[in-house]
Amino acid sequence: MSFYETIMGKPLASSEETSQKVGPLAGIPMLGLDALSSAAYGPEAALTVLLAVGSVGLHVIVPITAIIIALLAIVYCSYRQTITAYPDGGGSYTVAKENLGSKLGLLAAAALMLDYILNVSVGIAAGVGALISMLPGLHPYILPLCLVILVLITVVNLRGIRESGTAFIFPTYLFVGTLTSVIILGIVKTVLSHGHPIAVEAPPALPAATMGLSLWLLLRCFANGCTAMTGVEAISNGITAFKAPAVRHAQITLTSVIGILSLLLAGIAFLCHAYGIGATDPDSSLYQSILSQLTAAVSGRGWFYYITMASVIAIVCLSANTSFADFPRLCRLLALDYYLPSSFAARGRRLAYSEGIIILAILSGALLIGFGGITDRLIPLFAIGAFGAFTLSQTGMVVHWFKQVTPAKERGKKLASLLLNALGALSTGLVLLVVMVTKFSEGAWIILVLIPALFWLFLGIRRHYLQVEQQTHCELPVDTHGSEPPIVVVAMRRWCTTTRNALQVAMQMSPEVIAAHINKDNEDQEKLQQSWIRYVEEPLKAQGKPVPGLICVVSPYRRFFDPLFQTIQQVEAEYPGRTIAVVIPELVGGRWYDYFLHNKLTTLLKAALLLHGDQRIVVVNVPWYLNRKPAQQPG
Amino acid sequence: MSFYETIMGKPLASSEETSQKVGPLAGIPMLGLDALSSAAYGPEAALTVLLAVGSVGLHVIVPITAIIIALLAIVYCSYRQTITAYPDGGGSYTVAKENLGSKLGLLAAAALMLDYILNVSVGIAAGVGALISMLPGLHPYILPLCLVILVLITVVNLRGIRESGTAFIFPTYLFVGTLTSVIILGIVKTVLSHGHPIAVEAPPALPAATMGLSLWLLLRCFANGCTAMTGVEAISNGITAFKAPAVRHAQITLTSVIGILSLLLAGIAFLCHAYGIGATDPDSSLYQSILSQLTAAVSGRGWFYYITMASVIAIVCLSANTSFADFPRLCRLLALDYYLPSSFAARGRRLAYSEGIIILAILSGALLIGFGGITDRLIPLFAIGAFGAFTLSQTGMVVHWFKQVTPAKERGKKLASLLLNALGALSTGLVLLVVMVTKFSEGAWIILVLIPALFWLFLGIRRHYLQVEQQTHCELPVDTHGSEPPIVVVAMRRWCTTTRNALQVAMQMSPEVIAAHINKDNEDQEKLQQSWIRYVEEPLKAQGKPVPGLICVVSPYRRFFDPLFQTIQQVEAEYPGRTIAVVIPELVGGRWYDYFLHNKLTTLLKAALLLHGDQRIVVVNVPWYLNRKPAQQPG
Repeated sequence: MSFYETIMGKPLASSEETSQKVGPLAGIPMLGLDALSSAAYGPEAALTVLLAVGSVGLHVIVPITAIIIALLAIVYCSYRQTITAYPDGGGSYTVAKENLGSKLGLLAAAALMLDYILNVSVGIAAGVGALISMLPGLHPYILPLCLVILVLITVVNLRGIRESGTAFIFPTYLFVGTLTSVIILGIVKTVLSHGHPIAVEAPPALPAATMGLSLWLLLRCFANGCTAMTGVEAISNGITAFKAPAVRHAQITLTSVIGILSLLLAGIAFLCHAYGIGATDPDSSLYQSILSQLTAAVSGRGWFYYITMASVIAIVCLSANTSFADFPRLCRLLALDYYLPSSFAARGRRLAYSEGIIILAILSGALLIGFGGITDRLIPLFAIGAFGAFTLSQTGMVVHWFKQVTPAKERGKKLASLLLNALGALSTGLVLLVVMVTKFSEGAWIILVLIPALFWLFLGIRRHYLQVEQQTHCELPVDTHGSEPPIVVVAMRRWCTTTRNALQVAMQMSPEVIAAHINKDNEDQEKLQQSWIRYVEEPLKAQGKPVPGLICVVSPYRRFFDPLFQTIQQVEAEYPGRTIAVVIPELVGGRWYDYFLHNKLTTLLKAALLLHGDQRIVVVNVPWYLNRKPAQQPG
Repeated sequence: MSFYETIMGKPLASSEETSQKVGPLAGIPMLGLDALSSAAYGPEAALTVLLAVGSVGLHVIVPITAIIIALLAIVYCSYRQTITAYPDGGGSYTVAKENLGSKLGLLAAAALMLDYILNVSVGIAAGVGALISMLPGLHPYILPLCLVILVLITVVNLRGIRESGTAFIFPTYLFVGTLTSVIILGIVKTVLSHGHPIAVEAPPALPAATMGLSLWLLLRCFANGCTAMTGVEAISNGITAFKAPAVRHAQITLTSVIGILSLLLAGIAFLCHAYGIGATDPDSSLYQSILSQLTAAVSGRGWFYYITMASVIAIVCLSANTSFADFPRLCRLLALDYYLPSSFAARGRRLAYSEGIIILAILSGALLIGFGGITDRLIPLFAIGAFGAFTLSQTGMVVHWFKQVTPAKERGKKLASLLLNALGALSTGLVLLVVMVTKFSEGAWIILVLIPALFWLFLGIRRHYLQVEQQTHCELPVDTHGSEPPIVVVAMRRWCTTTRNALQVAMQMSPEVIAAHINKDNEDQEKLQQSWIRYVEEPLKAQGKPVPGLICVVSPYRRFFDPLFQTIQQVEAEYPGRTIAVVIPELVGGRWYDYFLHNKLTTLLKAALLLHGDQRIVVVNVPWYLNRKPAQQPG
């Protein structure tokens, strides 16, 4: 256990909950990396669309980035309000459910869930992809690298929410520090050179335009750039992870994340324009990311370049961590409402919602394996989930303000809040529409298939649980009649210690015991009957005790279960109203391989009895331990 | 069940065994395809080595084939004797075990097992490879095609041994018929043209020699050609599959298979020499198999060519069938000697040894998947298994004759038999040595690692079973003392129908019942206790019946099993010598997905109790069926 505890940490008591909460410093690495890492791929995605228009793109990127930052500001203000309004966690699911009804809440939950799963795969794959483009020698190891990082993030999160915040503090602030330095240095150089800085290392020349600007192109550029906004909802979803005052700490974290992100986006757009940096063809061998070109142009390709690039790669990989913080919380909320199995609501040994973490790791791992660690094609998909959830959450907030009864003097403030959220809903809804239209043929339709599927799954699970609840609800006292002992049927193969032990337990439970032998391989029935007389009948008769019956059934088709079950049904018919306890002797060895050598039959038998049986049949497993003395106390 | 029965056939009673036996006509497709298909790849493998010496190779292939046919004749005679001496199945394992001791028997078994597994993968992959070279459009589907063929052969074999013989009669005799026709036609043309026939379609010119003949090259050529001999032992291993007189039928089958194979090998070598046909580079796009060149040269590329090629491809694929007939028999023999789990000796519903068939399919399927359906590299490996088994079996036969007490007048015959087997052992042993040396660096060393690993596994399994046998052997009568009822501990979560039902069963089994509640999520303990008083204590007290105790345990680390187990241990300490029956209420739904929504805990709990428990703890599963009326009879 010691090795396990070294990896996973000591278990935490439920009472230690508060010690696990974080402040804004750890909150940023824990919940903000999805948003911050957007600085690395948002501008890149927008500029890639502009490749076709050549140098004209440089004039377009600045206004488009300005629009995106304005949008970001609106979304920021809306979510700030959401945090105040829902101090117990204002994820899209909660907000939409409470204000728009449970159906729309589930829709938001389904969208967000897909967003989280995709975010993990895409984040890790993008980070590893960036690493590979720096160190091409690692190319054969793309998938293993992705999976190692996934396991690392999973383990850190299983260790508890606080761990994931503190573990990733260093790369987070290194990323912010280096990138900010590059931007400041670049701006200083640009200003000093009156807007025409000379690059230390010149970026590749922009290709000639192959087409003119069009509205469609601008819309696609905008839709791609908007991927930079995903991850903003993470903080309002995770308020409960903050220590008191949670609302305040969550707001500080949100403000910091959005502030830093806006500055980075603005700086990158400005410098791309100033240095004439555009995207390069991702399929070309001369591909170089925007941030790489930018850093090289501003500071050259020295040690600082490599540190910056390393921190970018690390942060892109770790952006997956945001999903690990929020996905399990979302699962928990769904489980509490019976939309997911209840185990998603249980806190693991380190107080994290382990099952959600593990499921997220499995699903995103499956995506990574399925796509061989190259998940470019998934990138368009996850913006849809995020903006769908945004829109529903903002709309929910509008209804929230609308429904709220406020004293007259606060009406103005309320109206302002309502309008702000309405603006948020409208703008994110518009982005959703743009993203959906521009990305539809690139695979966005898959999301429109998966969301209803998840939705249906949630409803089905809840229906099932409610049905179970209804069927198991009980206001009846225990039945004091009919407490005759059960009829015990012992499944036996031959006379051996396991059989003897099982028979003894059976006789303790009831005076009415029947041993059933299914002869499926022409075994020596006579020998069995002789042992039975010698070891069971005679000694019991001598003591004047009730003697168990022995039924031998020949199975011509070498089946075991069918004849046994027929025997049990005969017993049922013979003793109406009595419980039939089927005793299965079981050999238990201490080693893992024992499983392959024994008990396959007993496991199947138990499953078959429970599946085909009825309320009157119960199954008793009587173990016989190999390599142990009888009645020994466990170690 | 109807669809399943259409695919798998109706179950066969044990008494229908004899109706499942085959004669020589079906015996050849069932057991002879491994040997016959050698005609397709043996000469090919030998000639590929000779590529480097150009046209000189044509002079070498005839004498080398002659040596191989001579060897084949020796092996044939030896195995004919083996069949007579071991009419109940004279596989290498049996012969080696009986004469050389169980260790060497196991060595033969391990070698043969690997041979069989490799033969399946290599046979199917080679057949699909040949198909692809005719229809390159199928290239993307190599692996699916391999797996479909594997599943087909598996299903046919699961349907019973007779099915696999009759199902493959047509392709087998088509192969023999077409190839014999090609050879006869070719010989006639050669004779008529005084040894210089004119090819209808000229084979590709032989490449210029890049090196001279060397002993090493000749040895490698010989070793490759010897792969044509694998599969000869199959028939002596499968004697029990033949109908009476089994020995006679097996011998007729062996004679036919070896006779046909020798004629084919001789004819192919003769015609290669006459038409100047050599191997082509397998990696080149101009690659064409020897049989394809030969058929085209003799008969042109008309419909007959395509029928011949199709039958060759089919037979190469179906050569896997021999393994499916013999591998399960070998597993059965090992299982009867406790070297494998006993389920390998059980006949399935169609009287085939289903478990061996399924394991073979899984292992060879894994090889196919692992190598992506391209298993060229495995070809050198499986000759080692085959020749290892040959040598051990022949050596065993020598000892067999040596040990036999014979009347004086038959001594001469016995000596002849002994010498024949000794010659067989010597020559196959030499071949083994040559194959091992020439193939060592090509991967043959893997076999030398795997054989000891299997050997060790067999011994470990047997040791385990003997230990179990010893520990469960029982000559004690049932214990008539201490038959006090068990102490029943009911694991309960809350008061519901499942709990109520479980409690009632518990009370039927014993007057001493304790309910244990593990509070791991701050549940409302007071509410539980109130229900307990209302629904259990009060009604039972009113009737003057014994009232079960209720133990509530708070679990600070949200664990369920540890506190429950501690409670059980306390009960054990309190009631020394008594059986503790732990009752686990279980929800059983009728649908597959119910498994994911419930019972994970109960399954784990049962496993944990059996693993950590002791001889005094038994586990009682009390099912509660959803969507069913209580005490309903099963449908």
